[in-house]
Amino acid sequence: MKKIIKGGTIVTDSAMFEADILIDGEKIAAIGQNFDGIADAEVIDASGMLVLPGGVDAHVHLDLPMPNTTSSDDHYTGTKAAAFGGTTTVIDFANHDLPSLVDSFHVWEENAQGKAAVDYGVHMNYTHFSTESLAEIAKLPDLGVNSIKMFTAYNGRMRLQDGEIFQAMRKAGEEGIISMFHVENGDLIDLQVAEALAAGHTEPVWHARTRSKDGTAGELLNICMLSKTAGYAPIYIVHMNTAEEMDVLAYAKNLGINVWGETCLQYMMFTEEDMKGWEGAKFVCSPPMRGAEDNEGIWQALEDGTMDVVATDHCPFMFDGTKEILYEGKPFKRPGKELGRNDFTKIPNGQPGVGDRLPVMWTEAVVNGHISPQRFVELMCTNPAKIYNIYPQKGAILPGSDADLAIWDPMKKVTYGVKVAQHRTDYNLYEGKELTGFPVKVMLRGDVIVDNGEWKGKRGAGKFLHCEPLSE
Amino acid sequence: MKKIIKGGTIVTDSAMFEADILIDGEKIAAIGQNFDGIADAEVIDASGMLVLPGGVDAHVHLDLPMPNTTSSDDHYTGTKAAAFGGTTTVIDFANHDLPSLVDSFHVWEENAQGKAAVDYGVHMNYTHFSTESLAEIAKLPDLGVNSIKMFTAYNGRMRLQDGEIFQAMRKAGEEGIISMFHVENGDLIDLQVAEALAAGHTEPVWHARTRSKDGTAGELLNICMLSKTAGYAPIYIVHMNTAEEMDVLAYAKNLGINVWGETCLQYMMFTEEDMKGWEGAKFVCSPPMRGAEDNEGIWQALEDGTMDVVATDHCPFMFDGTKEILYEGKPFKRPGKELGRNDFTKIPNGQPGVGDRLPVMWTEAVVNGHISPQRFVELMCTNPAKIYNIYPQKGAILPGSDADLAIWDPMKKVTYGVKVAQHRTDYNLYEGKELTGFPVKVMLRGDVIVDNGEWKGKRGAGKFLHCEPLSE
Amino acid sequence: MKKIIKGGTIVTDSAMFEADILIDGEKIAAIGQNFDGIADAEVIDASGMLVLPGGVDAHVHLDLPMPNTTSSDDHYTGTKAAAFGGTTTVIDFANHDLPSLVDSFHVWEENAQGKAAVDYGVHMNYTHFSTESLAEIAKLPDLGVNSIKMFTAYNGRMRLQDGEIFQAMRKAGEEGIISMFHVENGDLIDLQVAEALAAGHTEPVWHARTRSKDGTAGELLNICMLSKTAGYAPIYIVHMNTAEEMDVLAYAKNLGINVWGETCLQYMMFTEEDMKGWEGAKFVCSPPMRGAEDNEGIWQALEDGTMDVVATDHCPFMFDGTKEILYEGKPFKRPGKELGRNDFTKIPNGQPGVGDRLPVMWTEAVVNGHISPQRFVELMCTNPAKIYNIYPQKGAILPGSDADLAIWDPMKKVTYGVKVAQHRTDYNLYEGKELTGFPVKVMLRGDVIVDNGEWKGKRGAGKFLHCEPLSE
Amino acid sequence: MKKIIKGGTIVTDSAMFEADILIDGEKIAAIGQNFDGIADAEVIDASGMLVLPGGVDAHVHLDLPMPNTTSSDDHYTGTKAAAFGGTTTVIDFANHDLPSLVDSFHVWEENAQGKAAVDYGVHMNYTHFSTESLAEIAKLPDLGVNSIKMFTAYNGRMRLQDGEIFQAMRKAGEEGIISMFHVENGDLIDLQVAEALAAGHTEPVWHARTRSKDGTAGELLNICMLSKTAGYAPIYIVHMNTAEEMDVLAYAKNLGINVWGETCLQYMMFTEEDMKGWEGAKFVCSPPMRGAEDNEGIWQALEDGTMDVVATDHCPFMFDGTKEILYEGKPFKRPGKELGRNDFTKIPNGQPGVGDRLPVMWTEAVVNGHISPQRFVELMCTNPAKIYNIYPQKGAILPGSDADLAIWDPMKKVTYGVKVAQHRTDYNLYEGKELTGFPVKVMLRGDVIVDNGEWKGKRGAGKFLHCEPLSE
Repeated sequence: MKKIIKGGTIVTDSAMFEADILIDGEKIAAIGQNFDGIADAEVIDASGMLVLPGGVDAHVHLDLPMPNTTSSDDHYTGTKAAAFGGTTTVIDFANHDLPSLVDSFHVWEENAQGKAAVDYGVHMNYTHFSTESLAEIAKLPDLGVNSIKMFTAYNGRMRLQDGEIFQAMRKAGEEGIISMFHVENGDLIDLQVAEALAAGHTEPVWHARTRSKDGTAGELLNICMLSKTAGYAPIYIVHMNTAEEMDVLAYAKNLGINVWGETCLQYMMFTEEDMKGWEGAKFVCSPPMRGAEDNEGIWQALEDGTMDVVATDHCPFMFDGTKEILYEGKPFKRPGKELGRNDFTKIPNGQPGVGDRLPVMWTEAVVNGHISPQRFVELMCTNPAKIYNIYPQKGAILPGSDADLAIWDPMKKVTYGVKVAQHRTDYNLYEGKELTGFPVKVMLRGDVIVDNGEWKGKRGAGKFLHCEPLSE
Repeated sequence: MKKIIKGGTIVTDSAMFEADILIDGEKIAAIGQNFDGIADAEVIDASGMLVLPGGVDAHVHLDLPMPNTTSSDDHYTGTKAAAFGGTTTVIDFANHDLPSLVDSFHVWEENAQGKAAVDYGVHMNYTHFSTESLAEIAKLPDLGVNSIKMFTAYNGRMRLQDGEIFQAMRKAGEEGIISMFHVENGDLIDLQVAEALAAGHTEPVWHARTRSKDGTAGELLNICMLSKTAGYAPIYIVHMNTAEEMDVLAYAKNLGINVWGETCLQYMMFTEEDMKGWEGAKFVCSPPMRGAEDNEGIWQALEDGTMDVVATDHCPFMFDGTKEILYEGKPFKRPGKELGRNDFTKIPNGQPGVGDRLPVMWTEAVVNGHISPQRFVELMCTNPAKIYNIYPQKGAILPGSDADLAIWDPMKKVTYGVKVAQHRTDYNLYEGKELTGFPVKVMLRGDVIVDNGEWKGKRGAGKFLHCEPLSE
Repeated sequence: MKKIIKGGTIVTDSAMFEADILIDGEKIAAIGQNFDGIADAEVIDASGMLVLPGGVDAHVHLDLPMPNTTSSDDHYTGTKAAAFGGTTTVIDFANHDLPSLVDSFHVWEENAQGKAAVDYGVHMNYTHFSTESLAEIAKLPDLGVNSIKMFTAYNGRMRLQDGEIFQAMRKAGEEGIISMFHVENGDLIDLQVAEALAAGHTEPVWHARTRSKDGTAGELLNICMLSKTAGYAPIYIVHMNTAEEMDVLAYAKNLGINVWGETCLQYMMFTEEDMKGWEGAKFVCSPPMRGAEDNEGIWQALEDGTMDVVATDHCPFMFDGTKEILYEGKPFKRPGKELGRNDFTKIPNGQPGVGDRLPVMWTEAVVNGHISPQRFVELMCTNPAKIYNIYPQKGAILPGSDADLAIWDPMKKVTYGVKVAQHRTDYNLYEGKELTGFPVKVMLRGDVIVDNGEWKGKRGAGKFLHCEPLSE
Repeated sequence: MKKIIKGGTIVTDSAMFEADILIDGEKIAAIGQNFDGIADAEVIDASGMLVLPGGVDAHVHLDLPMPNTTSSDDHYTGTKAAAFGGTTTVIDFANHDLPSLVDSFHVWEENAQGKAAVDYGVHMNYTHFSTESLAEIAKLPDLGVNSIKMFTAYNGRMRLQDGEIFQAMRKAGEEGIISMFHVENGDLIDLQVAEALAAGHTEPVWHARTRSKDGTAGELLNICMLSKTAGYAPIYIVHMNTAEEMDVLAYAKNLGINVWGETCLQYMMFTEEDMKGWEGAKFVCSPPMRGAEDNEGIWQALEDGTMDVVATDHCPFMFDGTKEILYEGKPFKRPGKELGRNDFTKIPNGQPGVGDRLPVMWTEAVVNGHISPQRFVELMCTNPAKIYNIYPQKGAILPGSDADLAIWDPMKKVTYGVKVAQHRTDYNLYEGKELTGFPVKVMLRGDVIVDNGEWKGKRGAGKFLHCEPLSE
């Protein structure tokens, strides 16, 4: 079955140009002018529309177990929400719950499979160091995994020590596997949390106040420098959100460190101020919202090319988990933020975002003049695909690429919020925000899965992405 | 007539991917997979080859009159040489010889037309300020010109004063026209030259010693800052070649100045040391070769994204103009560098380069690991086309782009030099250099004009490029 | 005659310590503890007081002729005002009014001599280039002059061209003479002024709007780079006041350029906003007040050591020159700012400041926590004396230094303004400002010349300072 | 008893001037001109000499126990060697060997007292965290200690964790106590050492190769950032020696962090190359010698003001501890570097230096043109005294300062080495080095203790310095 996307303006990370796209089955077969008269081809009219590669969200958590609850989007609902926002690829995380990385992967695999509505890959958490698990890093490529994630926070639960981190990133580097890092300072956080609780502070804003931003830049530089000694092993820093981290990222790149930086949507838009009062619980995620000067620093890094990726760290919970909501017409109820009503440390960490990413950033970043449409595609689609080695299958509009497309109406006005977004939760961080530009048709491997707000996708239609190790 | 480039690996500024290219007439009609069975299409086998956009050299001088001689490549020979090196677009300069810019353009046009073998645009020199000529800037777009070039050197001949420059760049900015700058310090040069001559210095190396690099960075920053007051008028700095200029370029971009930087091939490869002895006359161009730390600074700027364009400032002369050479089988003789045998100020300024640019840079920059093939395409093809607003007609491999292609054999070994290069002159700066990678077939708007070292092009086949003003 | 300053806390550029000072005639004979029982010594009690070196204002204009008027402080009234503010050394400027520098110096000398109430040196303007005047630079040391001042502004009146500047700074450098620079862009200013006038703008704020700060940083870098080619000739940049100039100053120092930076009191305190309305005429000087981000940049440079000197560019005019004021009991009347009531270009450029400098900066910079008392002494006293080679005669409290002292009551509260300041003019920029800390006794070469607000000094008591050339 | 230092040129951190110094007992009573005819005063002729404040070495280890041996200089021999090199104040370190800081101090005190020949202070190591020891920080001022030293290396022995470090620096900051840091990465070192040993590497150069410089800059930035959250607690980084650390130090100061940097003599002069062969054992100390680009970076930081202090980390061992040497005519023998003949990890860490510091730096830094004599005094004398709050008692030539002086012959030529240096060990890192400038007389609190190479000092004459906490 062939399809032709006709009359649109294609936007890639480098170019904007009018062309038709010929799709043959799941793939883009050709890009060209005036694809008329091709037998048997269905024509999709994209006149006046932009055609973007489907978004790639390199940082989402689906069905993530947390104390006393689980994140409210599973591999179906989360990927469906992604699709509504124009994102057709997500990369989830597999917990390192069993001693063996491979075993842990299989637990994740079993849980995830058969549900996703868009394509998905997985990063492997590496949170329990042992000689055996270190050796297992070499087996990850066979599983389709080319990244491990480590933490310098969450002492006693997920944190590795520097010597362990060094060995892991060196081993990973040898295998063409990317080492990802969450670079908060676990020691400082634990201490600040204990002191805040002892002082009787329970409100959500204390989540931010006990995770000082001063714990991040040093850990970041440390990781960067260690990677140099580890043979310039490739590293990727997740959810960076402080001005000083931007400085260090630029400095490290200048030293020749193979480092990529990721920030998330919310960190440009909100500050610690938004975390005041109980409503602040909606914003509780780690790292927390920072200051206005940090928002500024992130925008600067997006504009000047220092920052590589905008993801979401999508991990929603119900704001009021005591109440039912309807999802696909059925009641849904699950404990959420209220678990931490009396203790900010018990508020489940995370917020919805996977569906918000493209439309909110388009308005904030492109319409408001920070970056060009091409840079938008680079940050949201192309770079994450390149880094995780699923390019040009994903993140591109090229012959041979998967026909994952977001047909984007740049004129469309939307009053955004929980009713528009399709996350399975009861709130949205961008409630009431006026957007200009929105995806009107979303295609996954040649199939239209969202059509003017109507769901055409299918649970289980998403395929697992086998991420190959980096070469050289 | 249709053609299919089959089995090659396309390299763009953003991607490398295997695909076939369908050419219909002068244009790329489509890019796709397995373009088999298209009726009437000639198939060009590109298996094992890279396919690059034809090079765009944004800075060449053809048939340039100099005191007592003229540069040895005219619009035919120079563009033919370009083609042999994979370059299919050049931008020449029109002298501002008559009071009127428009009249001056027509003089250039008359001389240039009907000769070029590849497509060509023109930058308009702006070297004689008057209220009338200032007003004429608005007429340039109708002539197909979207750039004016000004000088802070060549006092009394081409230099404009700052107040004139400011008015010109402001006017240009309003009209969507780019202001280009040569930023040496004319005062300093004139003084240094006079003192050197008075001291009896006549050798070529004194060309370098009398054009101190300390005259450049301040002029550059001055121009950048003036452009801010001129409403952030777009500016383009030609042939930057000092480490301090790289610092200032980065600083200015960071301030939000709309500035692009160009360097030239030779400035990464040679130093003032190469200008010693009479052989040094081969390297006499302005600005001159600098120091090793400057070479280093340029490479750094190419690697980290600060620098935007690599051009050539192609402007060859005979090294020994007293001897005939054969060109296309006919004798050619013209005064050259020997004019300055006894006085370095009389050495005609310039060197061949337009044909060397792609192959020499490929080996030095890509093979030697400084930059990726994509960044190579960006610097050599895409960025100059984008800046001068002839993208995606030029500098791109996209549907609708001109079918200007360099089919590149990345394995081909060539011992480079004057016999390989096709410039109409008697020397080459890269004589004896071992190259890896070379263009084997070059296409201009769908026609093969170079085929494995054989010339298939035609004098006059090159079209004048109408460069549109920048919007917004 | 001996004197002992007893019980005070001496503040130098490096230390704060309690000690007595023994003065023998005009000089500090010794610094020590418990100078009791020294025969014939008068004891001055400084208990609870700070003792600072008398201030050195490296940039004042006295009796400066301007079109249709003359600045209102002459060598007596200006130096008297200086003394009231704790400043005991000023450096004036000699106009280059005759072709010969030496002749011009003598004109100044004749006018200045016999008037000053504190010690004074002079900078020689160099505003008319000729082979003869260039050669005369070598004669300046015999006149007691070790500095020449050049301008990149005031086209057609005072500006030199870059080649002239280069020759002058090179010659000066060879002779141990400092080249001073005013680095506005004369071309840009002339153009902006003409356009503003043509558009009918006459208000004082247009003085600022027609002297864009974007004209300064490039000229500054240019001068710095030229000085490198001129054998790293020493240069001193007057009245720097933009954030970008601070960046360039730091950059140039880092390149090894022998450059010192001066800012003036007013540039940290006011912005272009203060120039609105007719009252803005009070602030008309060149360069004009800048923006808040520039104030910020200057403070940063003062704090981090980038900036070397705080001077005043003192050059007062009457705000309302149609009215008489009383000076030392006698009527004084002279045309002033009202000359430009209908045309901002006719407002005499300058403002009072020499007396304000120490007390206002103490409150703003020390009391408000920007810098330490030692850094204050460094910027206000020691550095200017060191740079102009009158250290340790001036700017120091050392044995052998001139006994120029400001005995400072750090607790004294003063509501500042025109009645407290002793400038011969009718306004003060800091009217109504509450100050903490003030000089209560000021000594010039051993004599108390200001005693708790009472004038004890004498017209003509100030000596001309013979500034020796820099060695090596 | 009074003494007059007559006719010398005093060098302070700010000035060079001719003056006499009157000493009354242990103190400088006055500085002045022509102190003639003061009854009963002994006159010391300093004509043609410079007079510097006695050196302050803020980082020495005396009588330091190491596995199987003890450093070869005790509190007598080490301070005597210091004196010969013009240093009259040293600050030693007390081990934290007992759980209680106070008890540990007393152990050190008992061992140290009655031996020193120059004045000495002590830093308190803080290497065993507990609630009790944390509280004891408040008691240190009573003991005369205003600094604690922590380590991010030496895992399992001396390293504290970040949370502990944070609490300690916060507490210290509240008490006006400086937190000192050794910022190597203990995890990385342990791993690199284990791997090197496993690979059979035993030579001294592996000491350097297993302490990668990439472990330092990140730890440094982390400490700097933590100090910000700890209320901008003052921190002091010992023995910095990498180019990247210089970058981070400048960055942190710019962020407003209260951080001082120390480097040591040897780190500017040698590289890892010097550690090859068994002779390399002489250079085994931690951190190890680095690369030439790091030497360069340190010089830059000394020149531009980024670096605050040059110390030594003096901690000598015998190179061949199997042989006797004579010390003060008596045989001395003690195990030394040979302990690590077959295992670089067993080489005792440290080298002589306290006596070398002033003379070697004078030649390398002042004579060779890196810095001025005043900056030399600042780095070697004044800054360490200011930072550790013993200024102006030490590090200054001011009335009331201790009469600690180094009378320096700037013309004296010395072929330096173990025979000139007075350390109790059998080698010197600067063997055979030609020096220009040397201390010829050294005074401690008014007594000449070194007189033209003759020892006049006394064991036990050195007093313990009570270092007061910082105010505000």
